Amino acid sequence: MVALTAIFLGTSSAAPTKDRSLPAIALQREGELLLMDCGEGVQREILNQGLGLNRDTTVLVTHLHGDHVTGLLGLLQTMSMAQRTKPLSIVGPPKLLKWLEVTSELLHIGLTFPIRFSPARPGRVFRTKGFTIKVARATHSIEAYSFVAEEQARPGVFYPKKAKALGVPEGKLWSKLQKGRKVRIGTRVVAPSDVTGSTRPGRKVGYSGDTRPSARLARFFAGCDLVIFDSTFSGRDREKAVERKHSTCVEAAELARRAGARRLALTHFSARYTRVSSLVREARRVFPNTVAASDGMRIEVGYPPS
Amino acid sequence: MVALTAIFLGTSSAAPTKDRSLPAIALQREGELLLMDCGEGVQREILNQGLGLNRDTTVLVTHLHGDHVTGLLGLLQTMSMAQRTKPLSIVGPPKLLKWLEVTSELLHIGLTFPIRFSPARPGRVFRTKGFTIKVARATHSIEAYSFVAEEQARPGVFYPKKAKALGVPEGKLWSKLQKGRKVRIGTRVVAPSDVTGSTRPGRKVGYSGDTRPSARLARFFAGCDLVIFDSTFSGRDREKAVERKHSTCVEAAELARRAGARRLALTHFSARYTRVSSLVREARRVFPNTVAASDGMRIEVGYPPS
Repeated sequence: MVALTAIFLGTSSAAPTKDRSLPAIALQREGELLLMDCGEGVQREILNQGLGLNRDTTVLVTHLHGDHVTGLLGLLQTMSMAQRTKPLSIVGPPKLLKWLEVTSELLHIGLTFPIRFSPARPGRVFRTKGFTIKVARATHSIEAYSFVAEEQARPGVFYPKKAKALGVPEGKLWSKLQKGRKVRIGTRVVAPSDVTGSTRPGRKVGYSGDTRPSARLARFFAGCDLVIFDSTFSGRDREKAVERKHSTCVEAAELARRAGARRLALTHFSARYTRVSSLVREARRVFPNTVAASDGMRIEVGYPPS
Repeated sequence: MVALTAIFLGTSSAAPTKDRSLPAIALQREGELLLMDCGEGVQREILNQGLGLNRDTTVLVTHLHGDHVTGLLGLLQTMSMAQRTKPLSIVGPPKLLKWLEVTSELLHIGLTFPIRFSPARPGRVFRTKGFTIKVARATHSIEAYSFVAEEQARPGVFYPKKAKALGVPEGKLWSKLQKGRKVRIGTRVVAPSDVTGSTRPGRKVGYSGDTRPSARLARFFAGCDLVIFDSTFSGRDREKAVERKHSTCVEAAELARRAGARRLALTHFSARYTRVSSLVREARRVFPNTVAASDGMRIEVGYPPS
């Protein structure tokens, strides 16, 4: 099984604490990296986690608040110092590109690689090497987006008995069929669908960014294997969450339940909570399969039981 | 004696390492803070060092390379979240203000306090609450400055015998004279200079930023109690230092010796040196009173022996 791993690089809200760096999450699959938000310090967390600066990387920026994006500058500069030549894909609010252009000029960031920028818009779909990225509108104080990263569909289960019955000898031809290609046996053509079950969906990870909960996001995250959601406040501080356009841990749990998600990781904790164990307890009453993200935590995303 | 402390917040060169954050140094005196460069992560290092975000603070930016300045954004944002109202003084290259303005708008940084920006220019002198800041041109790949921060001069030594001889009774009047004010004894006026030695210069700290060594900087740092100098490379890698417009540890030591400085702190170490003890050894052969800065290190700056 190909590993799909969520690596939490920063789990604070707008201000860092001694234990939590600013928002950034890496999703790693077969050497490819998705970076969801790039809070200040992200390049150092990438270094600490041994993730490398020269991979196939797509940066997904949820919104243009400083705490979610300023780490991008140091990342670009250090990638250039490391002589990266591979293009870097960036998806984010349209003005992100303008900021990067102005800043690259004023701060003399001489890029050694091209940036492939795609403006985020609700409903847009992007394909990377191993993922399909979907975009939905989040509900925050400024233009903001949520993302779902979905693996490409896997081939269906292979049935050796069916292959044998159709006269396909074990070996290279089985492998061809498993990879989705037709084979010829004498004058007959055997199609993959003759010997395999239907294709199985890839794993799905959803990331809210900063947002109030919404019916839209519950639909958008439907069936996610892992949802990573804004949990700035305790359920007891719901008024503050409403006022500042964030979510509580309880609202995150309610949304994960409505979405039929398999697992929930709370993140973006306000610095007022020195320990977040009580927030996890509140959330688990609603959605038991909940964890609190912490800096350096890794979550292996498994396939749903078939 | 009023403590004057240099606190190293980041001592890497352009890229951070696991042990070294990006360039930033705090100079602390009686609750006032000078922040010399603001590399990415500076707000978190300020938090780790317990320095506080609501002090009389002056930010001195040597040049507009990202690694020396991007941490300023998070600092401004977090100061605003903490509802700072005190003005923040910033001295730096003129285009710094433009970058802060563009960025504040695009990243929605709503400042709760005014910025008092002063463009750095060679020869300019700024006064803060407790310091006189002087500016010289550094020699780097782009417009760059070095700074000297000098305490206001201290009153001269007070001579009780002279005061008694002039009929000034011990107590409040002595205190007045010590503070530099005249006192009246009957029809006679006694001036501070009648009972004290000449004023004594304050302590001086010099910071090079990124630079090649130069005769100009040796003059500029003359008589500094502490010089903090670019030591990106070992003396064995002098060609790289010349090419990239930085200094070696040996060049830093030669400059400190020519300047007649009392103490030298090497900083801005290239990530290629996993241990910098050999760089200190090289420098000490030229200037014995040399230390290597490390993140979190504090240097108490003393008065010269009188």
